[in-house]
Amino acid sequence: MWTEGIIAVDWGTTNRRAYRLDAEGVLQAELKDDQGITSVPAGGFPAAIANVRERLGDLPLLMAGMIGSNRGWVEAPYVACPAGLPELSAHLSRIERERAAIVPGLSYLDDSRADVMRGEEVQLFGAVAAGLTAPDSLVCHPGTHNKWARLEGGRVTSFRTVMTGELFSLLSKHSILSQWLHTSVTVGEAFRAGVRKGMEGRALTTELFSIRASVLLGRREAHEAASFASGLLIGADVRTGLGDADPAAEVVIMGRPELTRLYVAALDEAGRSAREVDGERAFLAGIQALVKEIA
Amino acid sequence: MWTEGIIAVDWGTTNRRAYRLDAEGVLQAELKDDQGITSVPAGGFPAAIANVRERLGDLPLLMAGMIGSNRGWVEAPYVACPAGLPELSAHLSRIERERAAIVPGLSYLDDSRADVMRGEEVQLFGAVAAGLTAPDSLVCHPGTHNKWARLEGGRVTSFRTVMTGELFSLLSKHSILSQWLHTSVTVGEAFRAGVRKGMEGRALTTELFSIRASVLLGRREAHEAASFASGLLIGADVRTGLGDADPAAEVVIMGRPELTRLYVAALDEAGRSAREVDGERAFLAGIQALVKEIA
Repeated sequence: MWTEGIIAVDWGTTNRRAYRLDAEGVLQAELKDDQGITSVPAGGFPAAIANVRERLGDLPLLMAGMIGSNRGWVEAPYVACPAGLPELSAHLSRIERERAAIVPGLSYLDDSRADVMRGEEVQLFGAVAAGLTAPDSLVCHPGTHNKWARLEGGRVTSFRTVMTGELFSLLSKHSILSQWLHTSVTVGEAFRAGVRKGMEGRALTTELFSIRASVLLGRREAHEAASFASGLLIGADVRTGLGDADPAAEVVIMGRPELTRLYVAALDEAGRSAREVDGERAFLAGIQALVKEIA
Repeated sequence: MWTEGIIAVDWGTTNRRAYRLDAEGVLQAELKDDQGITSVPAGGFPAAIANVRERLGDLPLLMAGMIGSNRGWVEAPYVACPAGLPELSAHLSRIERERAAIVPGLSYLDDSRADVMRGEEVQLFGAVAAGLTAPDSLVCHPGTHNKWARLEGGRVTSFRTVMTGELFSLLSKHSILSQWLHTSVTVGEAFRAGVRKGMEGRALTTELFSIRASVLLGRREAHEAASFASGLLIGADVRTGLGDADPAAEVVIMGRPELTRLYVAALDEAGRSAREVDGERAFLAGIQALVKEIA
């Protein structure tokens, strides 16, 4: 199925990125647009896929992300942790008539909580396969729903989602703080002060309101509020993600550079160094590793 | 100014409630509608007030709430805590030509945080004046922005806002959880389990996402998600509000009964008993106490 090369698609809720790779896994062409799964009408996936092939070539498709969710094209059931690349490749959801396959997401369950991911797993295994991440490490993947994944022997043994990106977006679009949250977030003293406050572990619902009061009472400049709020949410996120992690474990921040730099700064405030890995590079490495595993 | 009776208005962001009281403070008539300050166009307050007088009588007006904010009619500067009824009455913002006055809000500042309230202060002092609340107590006032106020000798010495109501509203209208948050919230095992989880003090951003994963993985019924989420936010709220409070202090929950009952249940889960006070009754008592103070 893969001998002629493939098109790999990272198909999320609001965006999609597709890459044509030749039989050696070398990137030949790509497209990025805002045709996430929520923009595809009911029954519209065959047409959406035909459009990808028109633009990138008539090749087999290997897809990951929300395309495999209950709101996507074909639901690809989650694979339970602990899981590695072999479990992932053994549970592809194949759509033979379309020469397409969807990578399953991962699930995590213990006595006290449940968690799911879709799309990040390809990047996690790709980063290990490409030597960008140690097989034993703690990986943070910021985004709408940030994932903290524990890797052991190259397998994901557990992970935790923190919806930092979604909450910041809700607050800036719809909340009583929205007028102040459209300024761009910069890593300066306000951001760092927010991180320190967030790491104290008090409820975000009270710390967020205090931002409003601080501006009204002249304690904080309005133009600093966005950076402080971002720092606050990321500080609480980092406190949660580090949790009971081994203090010596390598922490890797993987994803889009405009987000990873914020988390690196927050970890620095927590006294931890972290390595940045580009999420797109890890995704392509993960697809190549999956293709090898299947072949 | 007050000898003929008055109209008292609790004028909030999205609603207003107005009451005609006779010279003895007895309630004669009232109106409640959705003409909160955000529904009044620029320059529209004189007309909005004329409308209140048309419906309730041509009497002096004493108003509290967001009407005194920078988005209201006339900004009534905050009075700093500690503050009691005398400070409030000494700092009314009078609009003589309109025979109207606006009650100031309260502010709180210490080295680590800032806070503000508008409207709840009338209820707090009213509850004490009417003997509904002990002069030394911890009062919780649930709403869009829940207030935890510490009363000492009948004065507010400090308070803290927790934006539980606003966050629940944002989540049910706009978030990835919204499909499950329109069910009505009931005090049952799901609510109580949410309270216990919220009281553990982990970041709400991670516990909220776990609700989604729990439903997707069959760990929790979709119809329980709203009650669990409400319990989670209120549990985190109660943990914050009790904070370093004297374990023997009386806790009073004041406000609308549909909200106070949730907080009473959450406090019960925390091993604390609490007394419910009707917020409207406290507001009217506060207005009467203010009128006496001014006379």
